[in-house]
Amino acid sequence: MAHSVIDVIRAKRDGARLTPEQIDWVVDAYTRGAVADEQMSALAMAILLRGMEPAETARWTAAMVASGTTLDLGEVGAPTVDKHSTGGVGDKITLPLTPLVAACGAAVPQLSGRGLGHTGGTLDKLESIPGWRASLSADEIRQQLADAGAVICAATEGLAPADRKLYALRDVTGTVESVPLIASSIMSKKIAEGVSSLVLDVKCGSGAFMKDLGQARELAAALVGIGTANGLNTSALITDMSVPLGRAVGNALEVAEAVEVLSGGGPADVVELTVELAREMLSQAGLSDVDPAEVLSSGRAHDTWRRMIKAQGGDPGAVLPRAEHVEVVTAPESGVLTSLDAYAVGVAAWRLGAGRSRKEDDVQHGAGIVCRAKPGEEVAQGSPLLELHTDTPEAFEAAREALQGAFTIAGEGAGAGREELAGGRGLILETVR
Amino acid sequence: MAHSVIDVIRAKRDGARLTPEQIDWVVDAYTRGAVADEQMSALAMAILLRGMEPAETARWTAAMVASGTTLDLGEVGAPTVDKHSTGGVGDKITLPLTPLVAACGAAVPQLSGRGLGHTGGTLDKLESIPGWRASLSADEIRQQLADAGAVICAATEGLAPADRKLYALRDVTGTVESVPLIASSIMSKKIAEGVSSLVLDVKCGSGAFMKDLGQARELAAALVGIGTANGLNTSALITDMSVPLGRAVGNALEVAEAVEVLSGGGPADVVELTVELAREMLSQAGLSDVDPAEVLSSGRAHDTWRRMIKAQGGDPGAVLPRAEHVEVVTAPESGVLTSLDAYAVGVAAWRLGAGRSRKEDDVQHGAGIVCRAKPGEEVAQGSPLLELHTDTPEAFEAAREALQGAFTIAGEGAGAGREELAGGRGLILETVR
Repeated sequence: MAHSVIDVIRAKRDGARLTPEQIDWVVDAYTRGAVADEQMSALAMAILLRGMEPAETARWTAAMVASGTTLDLGEVGAPTVDKHSTGGVGDKITLPLTPLVAACGAAVPQLSGRGLGHTGGTLDKLESIPGWRASLSADEIRQQLADAGAVICAATEGLAPADRKLYALRDVTGTVESVPLIASSIMSKKIAEGVSSLVLDVKCGSGAFMKDLGQARELAAALVGIGTANGLNTSALITDMSVPLGRAVGNALEVAEAVEVLSGGGPADVVELTVELAREMLSQAGLSDVDPAEVLSSGRAHDTWRRMIKAQGGDPGAVLPRAEHVEVVTAPESGVLTSLDAYAVGVAAWRLGAGRSRKEDDVQHGAGIVCRAKPGEEVAQGSPLLELHTDTPEAFEAAREALQGAFTIAGEGAGAGREELAGGRGLILETVR
Repeated sequence: MAHSVIDVIRAKRDGARLTPEQIDWVVDAYTRGAVADEQMSALAMAILLRGMEPAETARWTAAMVASGTTLDLGEVGAPTVDKHSTGGVGDKITLPLTPLVAACGAAVPQLSGRGLGHTGGTLDKLESIPGWRASLSADEIRQQLADAGAVICAATEGLAPADRKLYALRDVTGTVESVPLIASSIMSKKIAEGVSSLVLDVKCGSGAFMKDLGQARELAAALVGIGTANGLNTSALITDMSVPLGRAVGNALEVAEAVEVLSGGGPADVVELTVELAREMLSQAGLSDVDPAEVLSSGRAHDTWRRMIKAQGGDPGAVLPRAEHVEVVTAPESGVLTSLDAYAVGVAAWRLGAGRSRKEDDVQHGAGIVCRAKPGEEVAQGSPLLELHTDTPEAFEAAREALQGAFTIAGEGAGAGREELAGGRGLILETVR
């Protein structure tokens, strides 16, 4: 063996840059089991504490892609483009966005995951649609892309197995919080998906993994750098996640809201982010002359949605599951709602059953939260602020506990609170290209 | 469970000081297998890169001691004292020192190990004596201490099992080179041995683990700090290891040299270091009115040696094994030998069969090197510099290769080289108390 894993660990530990050969070797050897978990976790900790330069991170990502198969989208006949969000509360944007961009002329293969913790997963949301199935073969993905232009499904088994193995290891060894490792994990899956262009939605705020703009910028730059180095047209929007997106948080509740957007309605922030991400994706895919706002209002995106859901066995007209129990949190005073914390709402929805604590757990499709008021809106004392939905009423107490201090109301005389809101930042904070 | 291993890893990763409770818990949980290897290796890397403060290191050591049993030496009836060397080339000091200090009135339980790499192990050396056995029970150790005052044997199974497990893990995960982890590993074994006093011989120079004085000082301070915090009278000598100790390097060759010292002869540097370490041990043990130099010349240390060897089944009068093949490296020119590199000589002796590469390997008891000249001595062109001993003559080439550039001779006109030697440092560089 030309390489020794201890030499690779020592090199990174002592602050050196890993060579392309060292990276290719160690990722491959770990995937094959020739490098042991205890060796890779020591290397991951050294990477977390010493960092990786952009060129190392790009190569590390390429090595994870090379650990498995890559989806071949060469025959699809339209520019391929995808979006990835780093995860937020109420972030159902993938649902209206994928059929919208497909209706604009691109092919959009969205290989998605399930949720863990307080942020939801796209597959969990779609599985609330009766009959819909997440697992497709590579051939089925290609066929559906040719027919409908859009597919949202589970990642096929063979894509980036190194990432799957490394992610599970980092999860139990305190080595998650490394920008190069987070970025290479995200990008390896997207590159293996075989698309030509990619837009990242990097969430920033209390409900996101990146709490402040500095961290979000660092991650966005790393993601765009990896994509570009690996031959993808890549850009990123940094978007606000201090407040839940839209009004619905929870699987079926979010699907219903996504269908509202596709039908020409829905909350303004969800519509805005959907259209802006579509615009960016179309621009990356060379289709910037199509106006997604127009396509959305034409109803063609909704048609594509129905085709896409049907193709995967789902009934787009079916009644969605609803939770058995609903409680309402009311406004303790009259005034303007000036804040509603995304993280608190996410945790409360999770506790109500919308999310899972371990990969093996099930989610309740009807559980979650409906925000009856959003920041900036007037509320009257006793009026509904939040609806809590669950099949397990014993969860109400824990949800209410998570919501302690989650919102503020500025009363009639509180000029300062109103001003603070007026000066709040917009939904799209920055674009990184 | 009150503690989460991921919280402990994250705390150290982010530069925090671990609490005593966290340390006790994680060391115990690792010993029991409740913390996995990949978690402990990530923590070890975080410790290596973030460091531990003296109080943390002392507690970590105590937790490793608490992972097993401690030898009870309470009934021995004499002050108990031990020495530990961090390892060097030709370092046979334990052999004459242990019986010498016992002959001075202390009880010396030397629990030793086997060698790995270019430094020899005390048990390997003694096993070249026909019949001698390294393994004793705790009762046998106490009995022999009462009878002879001295015992050199293998560590009993139950002492500091956490250290055994962690050391094996660090060896394969690039996490050996951490002063807190090195120091706690050494000290956990010595504290579990149950002695009241301890003197460390911290080697410094090319043939040692610590190459420069700064590193050696750091390790010596950590060792003494841990000992003191755990209730042992502890001090350290920092001693030179840029040149092999004495003339003999290799198992039986070193035993023969040790017996020369016990018989009143032997190389001056071995005698000097033996007596100085004895003086320091006696001082720590409260026996500073005894003069070890006098006891050595009286022959009483040699008597104790014979009792000690016999008690463990060895024949102190037996002929020692000799290697089947000997080759001589001669001086290429006449002049003064100004340097002889300890590391090169150690590696050459190892390649000749005196050492092992893996724990499972055997050593050749007769193999090694005899330094026929030491720095400061005049040599004539063609006169013997080094004798190479081995049972496997195909090893000569690799040994000669290791010795390339290992020595320098200053010819008649070379005033500078002679001055350099004259300005060389002494054997004992510093004392740390």
